[in-house]
Formats: sequence, C-alpha cells, structure tokens
Amino acid sequence: MQDWPGLIEAYRSWLPVSDATPVVTLREGATPLIPAPVIAERVGRGVKVFLKYDGLNPTGSFKDRGMTMAISKAKEAGSEAVICASTGNTSAAAAAYARRGGMRAFVLIPDGYVAQGKLAQALLYGAEVLAVQGNFDRALAIVRDVADRYPVTLVNSLNPYRLQGQKTAAFEVVDALGEAPDWLCIPVGNAGNISAYWMGFKEYRQAGHSTVLPRMMGFQAAGAAPMVLGHTVEQPDTIATAIRIGNPVNKENALNARRESNGDFMAVTDAEIIEAYKLLGQGEGVFCEPASAASVAGLIKRREEVPAGATVVCVLTGNGLKDPTTAIENNDATFHTGIAPETETVAKVMGF
Amino acid sequence: MQDWPGLIEAYRSWLPVSDATPVVTLREGATPLIPAPVIAERVGRGVKVFLKYDGLNPTGSFKDRGMTMAISKAKEAGSEAVICASTGNTSAAAAAYARRGGMRAFVLIPDGYVAQGKLAQALLYGAEVLAVQGNFDRALAIVRDVADRYPVTLVNSLNPYRLQGQKTAAFEVVDALGEAPDWLCIPVGNAGNISAYWMGFKEYRQAGHSTVLPRMMGFQAAGAAPMVLGHTVEQPDTIATAIRIGNPVNKENALNARRESNGDFMAVTDAEIIEAYKLLGQGEGVFCEPASAASVAGLIKRREEVPAGATVVCVLTGNGLKDPTTAIENNDATFHTGIAPETETVAKVMGF
Repeated sequence: MQDWPGLIEAYRSWLPVSDATPVVTLREGATPLIPAPVIAERVGRGVKVFLKYDGLNPTGSFKDRGMTMAISKAKEAGSEAVICASTGNTSAAAAAYARRGGMRAFVLIPDGYVAQGKLAQALLYGAEVLAVQGNFDRALAIVRDVADRYPVTLVNSLNPYRLQGQKTAAFEVVDALGEAPDWLCIPVGNAGNISAYWMGFKEYRQAGHSTVLPRMMGFQAAGAAPMVLGHTVEQPDTIATAIRIGNPVNKENALNARRESNGDFMAVTDAEIIEAYKLLGQGEGVFCEPASAASVAGLIKRREEVPAGATVVCVLTGNGLKDPTTAIENNDATFHTGIAPETETVAKVMGF
Repeated sequence: MQDWPGLIEAYRSWLPVSDATPVVTLREGATPLIPAPVIAERVGRGVKVFLKYDGLNPTGSFKDRGMTMAISKAKEAGSEAVICASTGNTSAAAAAYARRGGMRAFVLIPDGYVAQGKLAQALLYGAEVLAVQGNFDRALAIVRDVADRYPVTLVNSLNPYRLQGQKTAAFEVVDALGEAPDWLCIPVGNAGNISAYWMGFKEYRQAGHSTVLPRMMGFQAAGAAPMVLGHTVEQPDTIATAIRIGNPVNKENALNARRESNGDFMAVTDAEIIEAYKLLGQGEGVFCEPASAASVAGLIKRREEVPAGATVVCVLTGNGLKDPTTAIENNDATFHTGIAPETETVAKVMGF
C-alpha cells in the first residue's frame, strides 16, 4: 500500500498552495471508486457504473476536500479562528480541521431549530456553537459580517479555496479510470461540488490526463430544485437534508458547467431518492446519506439516454451513518421477533 | 492517485485465496495512518504517534477486513446465506458484504435487548433479523448449531478467514512507515484483532518487509477485562460497547502475541477512555468509537515506559458516527443559546 499524504500533498501542483502554506490534513481524499453492478444492470445496455464514495472522507463527507484547503489557507494567513453557519456536514468538517490546525471553530445556528444530534460531530471536535435568534439566513448574514469585521475566517461556501480542494475528486476519478467518464451524476444543493468537479475535469484534460470530458448531470430534490426551476425556492423541502437549499451560492458556475458539458439538471422526488438509497444498501452494500442517493436516482431516471457501453460515475457525497434515522425508517429488512430459542424453530423462520 | 482494488487483490499472495475465489469487495482497507502530534506531545520525549483509522472502512469498522475474506470464501464454497449473532459492527459488515455478494444475511439478536438504532446499518443493507428469546449466549449457541446443520455459513469471530483479512492492517502500517512500529496499542475485546495484527507483523518481517516487531500492547475496559484479570467476566460492563466482552474467542492467540512480543495487557477505566476520546476529537480532529479510544487511553497511561524517540501506532477500530449519543453526552464544546441576532453581540460572545 502506498502511503496517502492527503489531497494537498498528492495534488500540490494543481492547488493554490506554496511552501509557506502549513498543510492541515486528516489524510482526506483517495476515496474508493466502487463498481456498482446491480445499478449497472438496472441501466442496461452494457453501461458501466461506479460510485465515488466520498462518505469515506475523515469526517464522513466531501466537505473535507474543501476544508483542508480552506483551513490551511486560513492558517497561512495567520487566522486563529474560523466561522461558519451550518447545521450539518460543513460544521463537522470546519470543526475537525480547525481544531486539527490549532484554531478555534465557531458554528452559528438558528436558535431552537437544530437538534443536538445533528451537531454531535461538531461538538465532539470541540466547536463553539452559538445559537442565534432568527432563521438560517439571518445566521448566515451575521457570519459574513463577523468575518468582515473581526479576525476570523469565513469557511462557508463563499470561501474561494473550498472548490479548489473539491476539484481533486475529479482528478481521482480520472486517475482511477484512466480516462474521464462519459457521464458524471451528482447531487446538487449549493452547486459547489458540480462546479468543482467540472473545474477539475477541465484542468486535467487540459494537461492531457484525459481525452474526453463528461456530461455533467446534476440532480436536485423535487422540493428543493432552484436550478431546475430557474428561480429561488423560498421554502425548500426534502428528506435529503444535505441538498435542502433554495438559493445555491454557486448557481452561475453550475449553469456554466451544464452549458459547457452539454449536461442537464433534473429533479428527483423523495420517493425516487429513497428507492435509490435502499438499492445502494441492499444491492451494492453501500450506505450513503439520502442526498447522495439523488445521483443514482437521477441516473436511473435518465437511463434511456445513456449511450450503450458508456462509463458513468455517480457521486456519493456523504456517509449514511450521518443519518441513522432515515435508515431505520426506510429499509426493506425483515425483522422477526419473539422466536423460540430452538435451532429448528430458527431454521424454519429462515426458510429451511 | 493509485486505484485501490481492496485488500484481497492488494495482498493476494498473503491470503488463502485462489483464482477460483470470487472476490467480494467494497474496496476496504488502505485506511489512513494519521500523525497525532497532540497525543505525541502528551507522551513526550520525541515519541512519534500515529493513528490507524480503520473507522474509514466501508461500513465504518475494521470488521470489513475480515468480512471481505469470510464472504468471498463462503461464496467460493457455494454458500447462499450467512449468519451471525451480533448487535453491532459485525452485523453491519456481514450484511453489507453478504448482500454485495448476492447472498442472504441472517442476524440473530436477543429479543428485547437491542434498540433498532444499533441495527440501522444492518437493516439498510437488507439483513434478515431474528430476535430470539433468551440472552446473547443463547443466540450465539443457536447460530453455531444452525450453521452446523443447515447450508448457511457462520461469519462470527469463529470463522477462520476473518483474522486472515484483518492481518492486512499490519501490512498497511508497515508499508506506510517503511518499518514496523516499536509499540502497537490496540483495544482488546474478542482479542481477534490483536491476534491478527501479530500474525501480520510476523509474516511481513519473515518476508523481509520489516526488521523489527512491535511490542503488542492490548487495552481492555476495566469493567470487561478478562485478559487482564486472567478469567472470564460474567457481566462485562463499559461505555465502550464494541469491547464489552467477558470471554474472548481468541484468548489463546492473544496470550501468544503478548508472550512472543514482550507485550502487555492492561485495563483502562471508562473515564480514561472518554478522556482519550475527547482528546482525539478536540486535539487531533479524529472522531472514533469509544472502544477505539482505549488504545490511546492505554498509551497515555503507559507513556513513561515508551522509549524516547520511539514510533507508536494506536489502532482506532471504528468510526465515531456509529455512536452519536456518546459524543453528545461527552464533549467539551461550548454551546451558547438565545443570542440576539446582532453582529456586535455575537462578536462579544466570541471574545472580540
């Protein structure tokens, strides 16, 4: 096994870092590209499907890719504290990397709207949580204002280094396949990840690491589909909380990725997301966040359009362990109770 | 990035597989070896500390290493179903790999003693759960009897292929360091992992991949420390549920590892485990299961004995996301509520 130094060292020449950058890393990246034969069978016509399982990053989501960059650059700039408004994956990644870098991590949340369970990771990493009266937008506005006026670095999606780190996922896909895929299916919330992947694929092809570029296929939850509808969604609603976003920060970049790649955006319903989520678990043995399953739900929905024999990569952005409740409430497992403690009885229940 | 094929392909010549073995893999293994400067500072005298973070395996624990072997060999033997008695990491790994291999996965649990939350993963992977009247020992006895008499493969710790897969973690440690560490600190429950690591270190040195062998330092929870006490513990009790075992299956192998390596077993209290668990989160940015932190708690307890400048690897067996409740109930995060939504007020709370 080759030792993996983390994505900044592995892809140093592609990133805005120098010898003066103190690299804050948890050895993120190098996540597996898992063949998905059951989903490929569902698509048919010899299409090959792979899952880029970014839930195996250190804090359990793709956010680590951006955060190793954002925190390293904050440290290089002399910052001693970072701040974000987040209730989920961003706050976990921000807290882990900030603490790893010896910095304070402030997390602003709307008071009364966030269960502590959602914050388990950030709390364990030693975040300082501030619950502010008002809604999430108000918390975000304050975060931006605090970062403008005090010596604390903003690590929300607006931080420019995050997409730089995230683009390395595209490099890894090309490195693993030896070529870019024909389609990239990806969940779209704030639209940062689809923008980062597209940047990565373009840079890698420019340098001769691939000869083709994928069609960028972005999938949103039907109740939170501003990129599909073409306008902001005031009250986004979906079981896929990680993409429950009504006004994506990286809208323009994502529209550009769609245009340049001849890609598309499309909505998938919560029912389709949950069907894909269960198929991933039972069929492929992969447990992802509900939001991640939007990429597979989208592929299944658009399967007729995939060219015969094409290679498709579906991005799974987060680990299913982040949301055990959805797994308990949505599965097809059988559960027999009250069985007499005898081998024959048990064997009979098993079907022998 | 080099594509990682999973541990069976990566270490094929070291494992009891052949061309006839259908490899069932989720690309497990190749988990990061993370430097731990904060813990090293706590130990002092130039000691270098690394964390082998096996919580980044596909189902979130080191069990995947053994299960890829156990399930591949079961499939090679023509088995169409597997069975285990487990409430935790083993049932998750068994279900994921069995389903990936197209097999049925039966999980026996004691009726009424297991919250569904503990089984979220196994359920999502499509396990068939049988809750049997009686205690855990009774469930285990039935599992063994069913596997003896019906065409279903036992994948509990008694399965001989599990340790073969697990030994690859030692190979990875040596590959990453270029040499075996001086000390290996590891949590001990069923004593299978310490036995597997020792087998791996010995095989690798035999082949010339390292020149030294580590001292094997096994740590048990004080309320579940049969290897330390020298006798079975009837009612094991600890917050570290993954090592709450009173009568280890691999007792003899572990005693052998201790003797041959000039190692030791020692108990750490739940308070020491939680202190290490929090230090890992806040200091290193690493979130592990409470049981995993026993290795770090043990190192800190025995720090005076580590030779100056030595290299120590602490094994973190499981992902902290498996047990969010412990994180919520045991952290040093600050949590301010009811803050007025004004920048100045927020900045003041932050200390500016």
